[in-house]
Amino acid sequence: MTSPELTKISAGPTACCPLPLPHLSQIVLGHGSGGRMTQALIEATFYPELGNPLLLQRDDSAVIEMADGSRLALTTDAHIVSPLFFPGGDIGRLAVCGTVNDLAMVGAQPRWLTASFILEEGLPRQDLARIVGSMRAAADEAGVLLVAGDTKVAERGKCDGLFITTSGLGLIPADRQVNGGRAQPGDIVIVSGTLGDHGVAVLAARGDLAFESDLASDVAPLNDLVEAMFAAGAGIRVLRDPTRGGLTGSLHDICQQSGVGIEINESQLPIDPSVAAACEMLGFDPLYIANEGKLVAIVEPSEAPAILAAMQAHAYGKQARVIGSVTDVNGGRLVLRTSIGSRRALEPMSGEMLPRIC
Amino acid sequence: MTSPELTKISAGPTACCPLPLPHLSQIVLGHGSGGRMTQALIEATFYPELGNPLLLQRDDSAVIEMADGSRLALTTDAHIVSPLFFPGGDIGRLAVCGTVNDLAMVGAQPRWLTASFILEEGLPRQDLARIVGSMRAAADEAGVLLVAGDTKVAERGKCDGLFITTSGLGLIPADRQVNGGRAQPGDIVIVSGTLGDHGVAVLAARGDLAFESDLASDVAPLNDLVEAMFAAGAGIRVLRDPTRGGLTGSLHDICQQSGVGIEINESQLPIDPSVAAACEMLGFDPLYIANEGKLVAIVEPSEAPAILAAMQAHAYGKQARVIGSVTDVNGGRLVLRTSIGSRRALEPMSGEMLPRIC
Repeated sequence: MTSPELTKISAGPTACCPLPLPHLSQIVLGHGSGGRMTQALIEATFYPELGNPLLLQRDDSAVIEMADGSRLALTTDAHIVSPLFFPGGDIGRLAVCGTVNDLAMVGAQPRWLTASFILEEGLPRQDLARIVGSMRAAADEAGVLLVAGDTKVAERGKCDGLFITTSGLGLIPADRQVNGGRAQPGDIVIVSGTLGDHGVAVLAARGDLAFESDLASDVAPLNDLVEAMFAAGAGIRVLRDPTRGGLTGSLHDICQQSGVGIEINESQLPIDPSVAAACEMLGFDPLYIANEGKLVAIVEPSEAPAILAAMQAHAYGKQARVIGSVTDVNGGRLVLRTSIGSRRALEPMSGEMLPRIC
Repeated sequence: MTSPELTKISAGPTACCPLPLPHLSQIVLGHGSGGRMTQALIEATFYPELGNPLLLQRDDSAVIEMADGSRLALTTDAHIVSPLFFPGGDIGRLAVCGTVNDLAMVGAQPRWLTASFILEEGLPRQDLARIVGSMRAAADEAGVLLVAGDTKVAERGKCDGLFITTSGLGLIPADRQVNGGRAQPGDIVIVSGTLGDHGVAVLAARGDLAFESDLASDVAPLNDLVEAMFAAGAGIRVLRDPTRGGLTGSLHDICQQSGVGIEINESQLPIDPSVAAACEMLGFDPLYIANEGKLVAIVEPSEAPAILAAMQAHAYGKQARVIGSVTDVNGGRLVLRTSIGSRRALEPMSGEMLPRIC
C-alpha cells in the first residue's frame, strides 16, 4: 500500500484483501467465471502439467515466433452462451467474433478459423442453419476464412442445444509489440465504447430483467478497429477485450502482468443508461460484466489523441473515451476514482456472477 | 459399374445403391457418426455458407500456403467420448492424439496445440487433474506444446462430465505432397495395425460387452511413425487415420477424392481375435469401427516394401500390413474381396453405430 488515501477507504475485506478461496473437490460454476476461481483452477490444475513459456504468456492469444522471425498468433475459446439467440447476436456471431478479437488483441491480423460443433440430439436444423449463417456473416465482416471444422452429437440432455469452440490463427506484422506486460506509468487507458452491453442483453434474453428493454449485445469483430488504431499511431502497448470478468478483470490482469497500477475515473466510464438501470436493479456492477465488442487499449501518452480520434471515427469506436491512466503507485492495484472524488480498489470477481454469458 | 462380377453380387440396395437419407428437421445421433448422415449435414448446412477452397480440401487438416511458399496445417476436433476413462486411455490422451494425428495425416509435423474445456458442474477435480496429466504425457510423447486454452463451466445436466476441443498447428516440410486426391491405380494400401480396438475398448468400458475382456484402446500419437515412413520413402500419396466411420469411411473418402477404386482383401486385414469375437457377438463390423492409433497409407508400389518395413520397425506399426490396392475399375467404389473369393462393395455407414466413441 503506497497510497494512504486508498488504505483509508478500502477497509472491507473484499476491497483490500480478498478472502482466500475455499478448496473445492468438485467443479462449480465459479470456475468458469473468468475471475479469481478460474485463475486458481488454471494455476492448480493446468499450469503445473502443461505450463510452458508460450502458454504462460497469459495474453488473449499465444504468440509463436517462427524460424524466419515472423510471428503467428493462435487462440481458442469454447462458447456455451445460453440462450443461443439474444438481441444483437447469437452463439455463431459470438464464436467468430470472440476468436477474431482474441487474435486482434495481440496485434495479429486474423486470417484462418476452425470451428468444432457439439450438437445436442433434437436441436432444430433451422436453428443450426441460422447460426451457421450468422458465423458466415461475421467471418465475412472480419475477413477471415473458416478452414476446418468438426461436428459431434451428444444425446438429448448431455449437452445444451449446441456448443461451439472456435480457434484462430493470425499473422502479426513485424512492427507491432503488444502484450499485457508492456504498460508503463503515465500511459493512457482508452476504452472503445459502452460497458456491459453484452452481459445485460443476454440476461434480458433469458427473461431475467423485470422490465422491457431495447438492449442489444455489442458482439462485433474488432480487427478492423485495431488496424485503424495502428494506422493512427504505433504507440499501442496493450490491447485487451474485456469479456468474462469485464473491464475490471482485464485491467487487473494488465496490472499483474506489467507490475503497474491503473487508476480509472468513474465519471469518464461510458455506460449506456439502460445498462446502468438494469445493473442497479439487479445488483450487478457493469465494470464486471462481459463485453463482446469492446476493447481496452493502453497507449503512449503522446499518441493517445491520434489513436482516440481514429477509434472515434470507426463504427465500433464511436464512443471511445480516455478513462484513466497507468500509475506507479497503488501497489500494483486497480483503483477507481469515484464521481464524488474518493478512491476504491477494484478486485477481480471471485466466483460467478453471470453463468453461460459467452 | 465397370465390373460385372461386382454387379452380380451387390444386389441388395444397401450394398450397391444406398437408400436416400430421410430429410430430418432435427439433429439426431447419426449426424455425428462420421458417415453419410454427417456428410449430408455438412453438405446441406455448412458448405453452402462457409465453403471455401481451404475448407473444401476435405482432408484431416486444412493446408494453408503462406506468402513465402511454406505450408501450415490447421485442424480441430471436439471430443465427447463416454466414459471419460477407458482401457488404454482417456479423453485427454484422445484429444491430444486425435489432433496430432489429423496434422500428421497431411504430412505435417505437429507443433502447437490449443485445448478448450467445457466442464460440467460437479465434475470431480481429481478426474480433471488425471485427464490433464494424461494430456501432458501425450503431448510430451508427440513433442507438441499446448500453447492456449480456455475453460467454461456448464450447469449440472447441461454437459456430460467434460468435453475437450483440441486444435492443432503444424508445419509441412517442403517435399511432402500428401492428400486424399493423390491415389493412383496400382498404388498399394497399407494399414498400420489391428482395426477396431478403440471402439470396442470404449464399449467394454461402458459395460456393453457381456464378457470379460482385456481389450485396450489403441489411442496413440502417430507423428513419429509418419516421420519414419517419410524417411523410408517419399512415395506416400495419401494418409488417413480411420477414426469415426472406421477403415471403410477413410477408404471411401479416398475413392471419392481421387476418383479411383480400392480393393482390399479380407484375409489380409489385421483384426485382434478379441475384437473380432466382440464384434461378432454384438453385430458390429470392425471395418466400420473407430480407431485412434492407426493409419492407412496409399503408397507408390515401388516404395511400398521400404515403407512397410519402416512401419513394422516402429512401436505403433508392428502389425502393419498391405491390405489391398488402388484400381481403375469398380466405378470409384471400395470393394472387399472376401476370404472365400467373392467381392462385395463396402458403403460408408449411414447413421450412428457407436455414439460418443471419440
